[in-house]
Amino acid sequence: MKETLTASKRIYEGRVVTLDLVDVTLPDGNAAKREIVRHPGAVAVVPIDEDGNVILVSQYRTAADHVLIEIPAGTLNPGEDPVDCARRELQEEIGYIPRSLMPMGAFFAAPGYTTEQIHLFMATNLEYSPLPADHDEFIEVSRMPLRDALEQAQNGMLHDGKSIIGILRVARHLGL
Amino acid sequence: MKETLTASKRIYEGRVVTLDLVDVTLPDGNAAKREIVRHPGAVAVVPIDEDGNVILVSQYRTAADHVLIEIPAGTLNPGEDPVDCARRELQEEIGYIPRSLMPMGAFFAAPGYTTEQIHLFMATNLEYSPLPADHDEFIEVSRMPLRDALEQAQNGMLHDGKSIIGILRVARHLGL
Repeated sequence: MKETLTASKRIYEGRVVTLDLVDVTLPDGNAAKREIVRHPGAVAVVPIDEDGNVILVSQYRTAADHVLIEIPAGTLNPGEDPVDCARRELQEEIGYIPRSLMPMGAFFAAPGYTTEQIHLFMATNLEYSPLPADHDEFIEVSRMPLRDALEQAQNGMLHDGKSIIGILRVARHLGL
Repeated sequence: MKETLTASKRIYEGRVVTLDLVDVTLPDGNAAKREIVRHPGAVAVVPIDEDGNVILVSQYRTAADHVLIEIPAGTLNPGEDPVDCARRELQEEIGYIPRSLMPMGAFFAAPGYTTEQIHLFMATNLEYSPLPADHDEFIEVSRMPLRDALEQAQNGMLHDGKSIIGILRVARHLGL
C-alpha cells in the first residue's frame, strides 16, 4: 500500500507550517501528487485542578474565525521533548506547573495533508507559578467541572479536535 | 479577543489545500502574521454493521509516512452537503449505503492553522452497494467489534484524530 516519494518541491517555508508539493509513485505504478503541510508537532494537556475542574483556555483562532475553547496546547520547538513542551505551555498559558504529567497517547491531527502529531497529557497536582504569555497570544483562562467538559466534548459544544480527544480520554480514564 | 484581518496574500492554491499568509491586527493594536491553510472541509463516518462491528479503512498516508487505520472519510466537494458527501464516501470506500445516518457533531481538525472542519456521522442499517474507488486511493477494508475499536481509540493504538473522536463519541452514545 505504500507510496514511494520520487520528488519534493518546497512551496513555502513559514513560522508554523511549511508546504511541500511531492510526487509519489502509487502501489499500481502510476504517479500522483500530494500536498504536504509540514508541522513540527504539538502537545496538548488536560489540566485537572484539586477540585476536579478542567482548566481551559479561550482564544480567537484566525483559521476558524471564532473564539474557541480549548485545552492548553502549543507547538514543539525543534528537538524539544514533548514533556518539556507540555510543562512550558501549561506555565505560559494557565500559570501552573504540573507535579504529575501522564501521557495519554499521540495522534495525527489531519493525516491526509499534515505531518502534525499531537502528544496528549493529563496534568494533575498543579502548582501556581505563572509566566508571561507569548506576545501575540490573547488567552482567557476558565475552569469547568470535568463532567461538564465531558458533556461538551461528547455533544458537540466543544469544537477543537485535540480538546475533544483529550477530555473524552481523560474522562474515561477517570471512570466518567 | 478577535483579530482583524488587514491583508491576505495567496501563497499557493492546490488540489486539497490553499495556503494564505495573512496580516492581522491583534486586540492590543499590534500587528502579527498568520499562516492559514484553507481546506474545503470533510466528513468522517463511523459505520456500524448488523453484528456491532465498526467498518474501518487502512491506507498509507504520505504526510504521516504510515499506514493508518481510520474511519471512512473524505473531502467535501464545493457546495456539497455533508450528508451527501458522507453517503458518497461510504459507498466509494467500503461499498455500503447507510439507511440511517446520524450527525455526531463537527469540529476543527487543527484550528491553529487550518480552516478544515470535519462533520462526523454514525451510519447504521448498511446496504451493500459498491462503487469504484478513487483512482489514487488504495484502501483495505476491515471490521472490528466496537468494543475493541473503543479500546484502541482510548489507549492510543489508533493514531488518526477524527477516527478517535468518532469512535469515542459513538461508543459513549451507545452506552459503552
